[in-house]
Amino acid sequence: MAKKWVSMRNLRFLLNEVFKVTELNQSPYFDRHNATTYKLVLEEAAKLGDKLLHPVFEDMDRKPPELVNGQVKVHPSTKKIIQEFGKNGWISSSFPEDHGGEQLPLTVANACNFIFAAANYSGSVYMGLSAGAVNLIQTFGDETLKKTYADKLIQGLWQGTMALTEPQAGSSLADITTLATPDGKGGYTLQGQKIFISAGDHDAVENVVHLVLAKIEGAPAGVKGISLFVVPKKRIDSAGELISNDVTVTQVFHKMGYRGAPITELSFGEKNDCQAFLVGEPNRGLSYMFQMMNEARLGVGLGATAIASAAYYAALEYTQSRLQGRKLSSKDPLSAQVPLIEHADVKRMLLFQRSVVEGSLSLILQCSFYEDMQHVCPAEDKERYHLLLDLLTPVAKSYPAEMGILSTSMSIQCFGGYGYCEDFPVEQHFRDMRIHTIHEGTTGIQGMDLLGRKLVMNNGKAFFLYLDEVRKTIGEARGNASLEKLAVDLEEALTNLEHVTSHLMVQAKVKGAETMLADAVLYLDMFGIVTMAWQWLAQALVVQAAMSDNLSKADNAFYQGKHYTCRYFFAYELPKIQGLAKRLTDEDPLTLDMPASCFGD
Amino acid sequence: MAKKWVSMRNLRFLLNEVFKVTELNQSPYFDRHNATTYKLVLEEAAKLGDKLLHPVFEDMDRKPPELVNGQVKVHPSTKKIIQEFGKNGWISSSFPEDHGGEQLPLTVANACNFIFAAANYSGSVYMGLSAGAVNLIQTFGDETLKKTYADKLIQGLWQGTMALTEPQAGSSLADITTLATPDGKGGYTLQGQKIFISAGDHDAVENVVHLVLAKIEGAPAGVKGISLFVVPKKRIDSAGELISNDVTVTQVFHKMGYRGAPITELSFGEKNDCQAFLVGEPNRGLSYMFQMMNEARLGVGLGATAIASAAYYAALEYTQSRLQGRKLSSKDPLSAQVPLIEHADVKRMLLFQRSVVEGSLSLILQCSFYEDMQHVCPAEDKERYHLLLDLLTPVAKSYPAEMGILSTSMSIQCFGGYGYCEDFPVEQHFRDMRIHTIHEGTTGIQGMDLLGRKLVMNNGKAFFLYLDEVRKTIGEARGNASLEKLAVDLEEALTNLEHVTSHLMVQAKVKGAETMLADAVLYLDMFGIVTMAWQWLAQALVVQAAMSDNLSKADNAFYQGKHYTCRYFFAYELPKIQGLAKRLTDEDPLTLDMPASCFGD
Repeated sequence: MAKKWVSMRNLRFLLNEVFKVTELNQSPYFDRHNATTYKLVLEEAAKLGDKLLHPVFEDMDRKPPELVNGQVKVHPSTKKIIQEFGKNGWISSSFPEDHGGEQLPLTVANACNFIFAAANYSGSVYMGLSAGAVNLIQTFGDETLKKTYADKLIQGLWQGTMALTEPQAGSSLADITTLATPDGKGGYTLQGQKIFISAGDHDAVENVVHLVLAKIEGAPAGVKGISLFVVPKKRIDSAGELISNDVTVTQVFHKMGYRGAPITELSFGEKNDCQAFLVGEPNRGLSYMFQMMNEARLGVGLGATAIASAAYYAALEYTQSRLQGRKLSSKDPLSAQVPLIEHADVKRMLLFQRSVVEGSLSLILQCSFYEDMQHVCPAEDKERYHLLLDLLTPVAKSYPAEMGILSTSMSIQCFGGYGYCEDFPVEQHFRDMRIHTIHEGTTGIQGMDLLGRKLVMNNGKAFFLYLDEVRKTIGEARGNASLEKLAVDLEEALTNLEHVTSHLMVQAKVKGAETMLADAVLYLDMFGIVTMAWQWLAQALVVQAAMSDNLSKADNAFYQGKHYTCRYFFAYELPKIQGLAKRLTDEDPLTLDMPASCFGD
Repeated sequence: MAKKWVSMRNLRFLLNEVFKVTELNQSPYFDRHNATTYKLVLEEAAKLGDKLLHPVFEDMDRKPPELVNGQVKVHPSTKKIIQEFGKNGWISSSFPEDHGGEQLPLTVANACNFIFAAANYSGSVYMGLSAGAVNLIQTFGDETLKKTYADKLIQGLWQGTMALTEPQAGSSLADITTLATPDGKGGYTLQGQKIFISAGDHDAVENVVHLVLAKIEGAPAGVKGISLFVVPKKRIDSAGELISNDVTVTQVFHKMGYRGAPITELSFGEKNDCQAFLVGEPNRGLSYMFQMMNEARLGVGLGATAIASAAYYAALEYTQSRLQGRKLSSKDPLSAQVPLIEHADVKRMLLFQRSVVEGSLSLILQCSFYEDMQHVCPAEDKERYHLLLDLLTPVAKSYPAEMGILSTSMSIQCFGGYGYCEDFPVEQHFRDMRIHTIHEGTTGIQGMDLLGRKLVMNNGKAFFLYLDEVRKTIGEARGNASLEKLAVDLEEALTNLEHVTSHLMVQAKVKGAETMLADAVLYLDMFGIVTMAWQWLAQALVVQAAMSDNLSKADNAFYQGKHYTCRYFFAYELPKIQGLAKRLTDEDPLTLDMPASCFGD
């Protein structure tokens, strides 16, 4: 087992030095917190990761959930994990106080969630799902729903889920067929199937509460006819007892990784006795669900980053201790072997991982910070932060998910053959990682969301705000001798992104949305790289200001390492946008033109 | 289970139309073969893949090898697989007749090996390892070794292995410590440990024959003191009986994938009773082993390509049949859903996979063809083909291995959530794939081999021959209206590669080899992409010549598909060299400068 999975030093750097979270406390919304409480919260999170989650990281993988007599059995430690988290207020930590929460800045709460996910990703997802569900109920549900479900979910006694996908519809939510029929008593009965429902059933809680997208009989076709329902596994009867609500688990999927959490197929109303409770107004379900989806997408980015972090530290530890070969400049076979980390190519592999991990984490916290700013900023700035968060959510979901596959793969590579074996944790991290480009909207969906929706909404306002943000950072770096070149490189990259964006907008007008969106994933890639470069330059600015001759050896090494990683990103990763930009502007519509039949034979 | 894992049509295209293997038969070396025998051989290979290998593809993964009482137990079907292959001459198919082989062109033999590996990679590796071992014995061993081992290995009764890596040395062969001590009777006794030995022991054969690198007592330090030995698990005593040769299996590794084949740790001479038989001369072991290594490296590229092929066809089948969503141009939710393959982004993902699979296969067969040409060309051309094969071997190993990870990952992505589950084969392909950038020399090792050895050998002669080859293809494409732009793009890319190469050679002179080689992996990436573009243009030339109005519908779709895939490669993949070239020429020595201590905290 690895000794370390996150850098607490880096978390403190991002929270205190980059985002300066304590400044949030000057506003009434966050004024019950201060630097000391943040410190304690982080330490407590580290302790939970250490004592509760990480010890069963491997065992939860080796003993995955099973479906036994219609009930999903999960790893025995799951119950303790969920209850501890419930008992100590972690599920609701960032909720407003009047929703039963601690009103902790999301930036701080997500730093803690990062620790949990890095310690044991599967073990950490149960709480996030419950948090998303209760947040939806608190925001859009009526008093009865809140009273019935919120406390139980917050306390970790019941499990929350989000149930969108159906076997026949996949990513195409317009095609869901789960049907809610008015029962004549003001309620609904539900019938349908949902697939790939995370934590859709298990024996670590006494009840499961599904937030289900369904169509009310006679609703409009497509996404405009989707409503949101609370559908518990067990409903409360007139005597106050929990009784079956006709929700059946029809399958537990056997997955490549992420095996500590059950992914299920559910059937609602097989006996025509499944009661569903409408959330908010009919036919507005998808817009409600998007609140949960956006949180969940940020959560996926966070989870991917956390897994990459754990794999990176395992690789770092190995390359620091494992002696192998000699530097090319001293190949005398009688000299001592050097640690792997002394080889330039190994440093390159480590820098790649570190750039992905710390860059992605910075972006996740940036997004969280935009959320927090909406609570503290003047009313006229609220839209600004909201739009920035909206724009960056698909990027913060996809960049860590896509690059996380490569990053954990590189972690394996640092180990050589050992990395492919169960003796070390990295093969599990690689397997755990692979789900993240799929769940909560595939990368293809995120690309269309960014380019087809976020870029064009409010006449491109979010994009212009984004350009302002990046240029603010560039402006601060300009004139600083050691950052000048990086600032120039980022300005050039940003101009390139603007150019590509304009080109695609013209394409949309001339040739239609299909042409503009054909390579939306490449656009998302390019946007992600530029955004990471921005996050790295922002970090490098803080590092520059902090460098002095009086630093401790550890601080000096940390800041130097940051600066090298920033340079790595600009030297190795940022140039990748050139190839992307070339394709995005070359106008050969080959994926649109090619008939599907040409894949034959 | 998938219905298809290779395209026989594509194999015929490459063998008959691109490489024109029947022209080889005009030379005496291959004159016992003809178009009909090749056709029969391919059909037989397809049948074996279909009936023998593929049916146990999943089961060999689900029931991996176990170490029971010192003996490795493998899947029960393994024995039948190895014996069938032995009985029918597959292990020695490309060997010269005087080595007990069929003298089949390697190009054809590797087309068959591709079918086997695509049907069931783990099941196919046993034979390749035996073939490599027996080839070494036949080439460098004395008559006694040949007589004792060759037939048993060729017949699939015994298993061959290559035992290089040691626990304390990893990729650094200079540091191996396995010791051969003269026994005073003209032989040697061996002591030492070897790790990650594929098929290092199992119960599907009656004996295992290890080709072991070791040092003879008093040999020079480093790689100059390495000798090659045959070390059987069981040796033949004076009565002609097989008795234990003191080789112990100390571990079977539990691997993420490639689980149908046992990877073992071996201990030689624990009881000081392990006899080793010297192959060739003392201290020349590494140069002998490189023959096997080079074959094995081509085999790794072939295996990676084959796995990617199987995953691609699974993804293709799924996207052709699975209905989901609508085209952006007709979002009416009341209209029927379309197959996934109708979405431009899905076609992009499929084209990526196809470009990796068919491009890599083309390169593997190109390398095999260079090997074959050495048997048929005039004496003065032999060096030319030898050098080209030598130069391209690290590329043909690494491009398929590295891109295979991405390609199988993309196959999963085509399935969405299902791709992550055991219900479909792609998650296994993704797991099986991950070993290929590691075994038989990591990508880092291949990068140094290409840039540090192959580029500079014979004053760069191999590289100049390579440039000639590529320019010959460019020349043929020039002036052809539909290929002109591709030819120009490739010429530009090749010039870029020349420029980067010169730059690095100057760096070597001015700053030393360490600077030149720091980013050898990026150079290998760039070389790989340019080489793929060349292979695609070569295929496109054949396609151009074959297109006519009289083609069958299937042929027309096949050729059109080829042309689209070639265009895809030039539009999406070739531009990636821009970013690589930028880094390779920017001269910031950051991975050399950065102290390892800066990774602390």
